[in-house]
Amino acid sequence: MPYINIKITDENVTLEQKQRMIQGTTQLMVDVLNKDPALTHVVIDEVSTDNWGVSGETVTELRKR
Amino acid sequence: MPYINIKITDENVTLEQKQRMIQGTTQLMVDVLNKDPALTHVVIDEVSTDNWGVSGETVTELRKR
Amino acid sequence: MPYINIKITDENVTLEQKQRMIQGTTQLMVDVLNKDPALTHVVIDEVSTDNWGVSGETVTELRKR
Amino acid sequence: MPYINIKITDENVTLEQKQRMIQGTTQLMVDVLNKDPALTHVVIDEVSTDNWGVSGETVTELRKR
Amino acid sequence: MPYINIKITDENVTLEQKQRMIQGTTQLMVDVLNKDPALTHVVIDEVSTDNWGVSGETVTELRKR
Amino acid sequence: MPYINIKITDENVTLEQKQRMIQGTTQLMVDVLNKDPALTHVVIDEVSTDNWGVSGETVTELRKR
Repeated sequence: MPYINIKITDENVTLEQKQRMIQGTTQLMVDVLNKDPALTHVVIDEVSTDNWGVSGETVTELRKR
Repeated sequence: MPYINIKITDENVTLEQKQRMIQGTTQLMVDVLNKDPALTHVVIDEVSTDNWGVSGETVTELRKR
Repeated sequence: MPYINIKITDENVTLEQKQRMIQGTTQLMVDVLNKDPALTHVVIDEVSTDNWGVSGETVTELRKR
Repeated sequence: MPYINIKITDENVTLEQKQRMIQGTTQLMVDVLNKDPALTHVVIDEVSTDNWGVSGETVTELRKR
Repeated sequence: MPYINIKITDENVTLEQKQRMIQGTTQLMVDVLNKDPALTHVVIDEVSTDNWGVSGETVTELRKR
Repeated sequence: MPYINIKITDENVTLEQKQRMIQGTTQLMVDVLNKDPALTHVVIDEVSTDNWGVSGETVTELRKR
């Protein structure tokens, strides 16, 4: 029953990259915990760089440096 | 103080369906746990079928079969 | 593919109450969105009243009044 | 290592307000728990008023009164 | 209607520190967005250092250095 | 800046398994998106089988069959 939520910044992530993340995390659950892929859900959230902060600043600001 | 987060695929969910989900889960908290509706928050996240995976594939792919 | 996360305070919730919440929210997804129950996951998080705040105070404090 | 997720309704939040929320919560982690800002991530989710419910109604409906 | 989730490592956080985090984030929502404290919920999750990873390692390992 | 949350049932997951999940998901972010491991956080939540439902039943019940 794994549920995996991947939050990344919204910076031109391609469908092929999403497929690789979904396939990779699902396979990891199979390899490490012997989970059933049919019960393994993965949700990817793409977050605007204005809405993600680290070190007290938005990623938008950090990307400018 | 319940907080309920409903994640569903973004596939033409109507406002009336959202209202029914909000009303239904809130009522369930009242019926089962005697919670105060004014303290019960429900957030619905609609996720692109490209961003939801199950069985190691995106829902976009699964919908094609 | 719904995923539902229910956060409630940890105040003697019984197994029977958990079963009713799981059954109720799953049925709601079937009734409102015609979802497959086998693809509907529900996770209940019980949160200590020390760790939940509303109106700027912990629920532990609010319960004392 | 704090991770802070702020969910608010999507009602014309400005970049300057987002910066203040990111800066304020990060500083709070430093002041209260002595955390390293470089390890403190903040993610702001703006939720449509159709998708947020309280008291069993959408915020869209509540805003009309 | 803000909902704020603070995830921190489980390392002897005191009730007084939790109160300060709840009070501080709630006040921030009032100051920045003019939100109603009665509608502002804060949930603190304390995560075992075995269950938090950064740089590909558990915090338990990182704390040993 | 990825943040990955892995929710699994609480069924005797070992520290070595947690390390493999943390290492594997972090490496996936590097391989697929070229992310910096120092900015990649992974949080594993272990959920009681009484608190996880699928097909409208708790995992505790499903495990009995």
